Amino acid sequence: MSKIKNDLFLKALRGETVDRPPVWMMRQAGRYLPEFMEIKEKYDFFTRCQTPELASEITVQPIRRFGMDAAILFSDILVIPQAMNIEVEMKPNVGPWLPNPIRTKKDLERVIIPNIQDSLGYVMDAIDMTKEKLNDEIPLIGFAGSPWTILCYCVQGQGSKNFDKAKEFCFTQPLVAHQLLQRITTTTIAYLKEKVKHGVNAVQIFDSWGGMLSPTDYQEFSWQYIQQIINALKKETHVIAFGKGCWFALNTMAQSGASALGVDWTCSARNARYLTGGNITLQGNFDPSRLFSPPSEIKTMVNQMIKEFGKDRYIVNLGHGILPNIPVENAKAFVDAVKEYQE
Amino acid sequence: MSKIKNDLFLKALRGETVDRPPVWMMRQAGRYLPEFMEIKEKYDFFTRCQTPELASEITVQPIRRFGMDAAILFSDILVIPQAMNIEVEMKPNVGPWLPNPIRTKKDLERVIIPNIQDSLGYVMDAIDMTKEKLNDEIPLIGFAGSPWTILCYCVQGQGSKNFDKAKEFCFTQPLVAHQLLQRITTTTIAYLKEKVKHGVNAVQIFDSWGGMLSPTDYQEFSWQYIQQIINALKKETHVIAFGKGCWFALNTMAQSGASALGVDWTCSARNARYLTGGNITLQGNFDPSRLFSPPSEIKTMVNQMIKEFGKDRYIVNLGHGILPNIPVENAKAFVDAVKEYQE
Repeated sequence: MSKIKNDLFLKALRGETVDRPPVWMMRQAGRYLPEFMEIKEKYDFFTRCQTPELASEITVQPIRRFGMDAAILFSDILVIPQAMNIEVEMKPNVGPWLPNPIRTKKDLERVIIPNIQDSLGYVMDAIDMTKEKLNDEIPLIGFAGSPWTILCYCVQGQGSKNFDKAKEFCFTQPLVAHQLLQRITTTTIAYLKEKVKHGVNAVQIFDSWGGMLSPTDYQEFSWQYIQQIINALKKETHVIAFGKGCWFALNTMAQSGASALGVDWTCSARNARYLTGGNITLQGNFDPSRLFSPPSEIKTMVNQMIKEFGKDRYIVNLGHGILPNIPVENAKAFVDAVKEYQE
Repeated sequence: MSKIKNDLFLKALRGETVDRPPVWMMRQAGRYLPEFMEIKEKYDFFTRCQTPELASEITVQPIRRFGMDAAILFSDILVIPQAMNIEVEMKPNVGPWLPNPIRTKKDLERVIIPNIQDSLGYVMDAIDMTKEKLNDEIPLIGFAGSPWTILCYCVQGQGSKNFDKAKEFCFTQPLVAHQLLQRITTTTIAYLKEKVKHGVNAVQIFDSWGGMLSPTDYQEFSWQYIQQIINALKKETHVIAFGKGCWFALNTMAQSGASALGVDWTCSARNARYLTGGNITLQGNFDPSRLFSPPSEIKTMVNQMIKEFGKDRYIVNLGHGILPNIPVENAKAFVDAVKEYQE
């Protein structure tokens, strides 16, 4: 693998000392950027994901504008269920829509473990094209949803405040739930390994809905599958595990072999360092809604955040995805504050 | 005040030793009960709230069926903004709908601090009627939403996954936000004091959306107002503060003068006792979705939960409201497990 010129992000993942922490933003490729909105008007969601020229262009748009220290491939966690023979649509103003959700043992029969190159080759092409565009200037991050989070959509059939149907499924048919989770896990491992082969420098697991579970249920229905993924990938690449609302599991996560853990804004730097034992690299945790604050205030808050986490073993990020209606200059203030950081 | 025959709940609030912990369920009056659904078919939401005969009947329905150790008045947190001259509708399949949300300083002008007896007298009548029906068998709980949670609806205009508009309002117009929060607080204090006069034995503050805020923003936009309410009420009655997702503030809450703190299922008994210092009564924290489990499993889990919290200084409850489609026999198993509890 060729040498990455700006290796701040990789240094942070390895726990090395840096002059300033690296910065990237969850969902940085997307919704809040005018140049993204232009593409969005012309092509629907899955066309954007499935066309390597578009996906790679969207991936590098924020880098051109703001110069983050890492790029994250434009894609979606729901390409996995799609490849597993579960229909997924993206409905305007609704979001993900799965017309035939998985609710029974019978439904599970049609869920396949796909051949990655056949069904998700377009993602690999997008990685190849993005790597070319990035020209080894910065690292590229690949990602996948956690098996639990993917299950949530597969069973609920759409987004939800509490994913009650997904939880009902797990609590009334745990054996079927575990079979589905294992198929998603097996697929995700093959998918991420293929991404690594195509040159991504790190992978992040998004457990967006892990925080809906009790600590006991989290271990059973979410964490054990994330741990499988980490075990399978950690020798080949850096794994970042991000569980929204999963503060209660940070202790376990810190011993998983992940290179870094994402935290959200409800978990202070002090709590996060305490709960993880103080040695692992942490990533986060600016409240995405706080990007509505005036740019000068954003800069002050980012500086305060770096002070609290410490500049080492730390990756500056939001605590969840950026909101679509954030002013561009506010996103810029966030990145600039980190790049201007001085101890 | 006359003596309550079953005073388990009050004993727990006072921190006294009991043979078994008391039990009630958040939103126990409502959606999962067939006898409630019968009333629901005939009368719309606010008719049910505003008709003391209906509200008191709905309040005692679950007591007749299951014999919980406390009743909670059937009402809604949104009767407060309604009384403050903010229109609130309840739309089927949508939930709360506020056609004219508060988004500017100008919008705030029409928000009044109402005379409680004039605008919310129907709640007091419902309390009088419920007290009569309960005949001092068990205590009656009154409640209100936290000012932050009420603001969320007033600004967003409806339920939301992240209350982005409410947070944008607070972070771009903090002065206006604080004026609105103070008006809600002042109204809520007068409202709860009137409830106490009419004989409720405790009040609970529901901060359903406090967990959307960072610890710093939580102090500024939510907790300081809840503290005002506790300060105003604590000499007259027991206050229970429940903040969903607010584990990070339990330490502060434990020093507030509240008689008990509610916790949700993401915070284990061990964490909750640790974070609150071990001396305050805790209430919770069964995952409402776990009531989908078979009754025998529910009973095992409830016993385990009591073991972990300890029987004293503990009130058995769910960690949030009961879901509408929970089988009645499963709700019964939850209550029965507590009533059958033996050390």
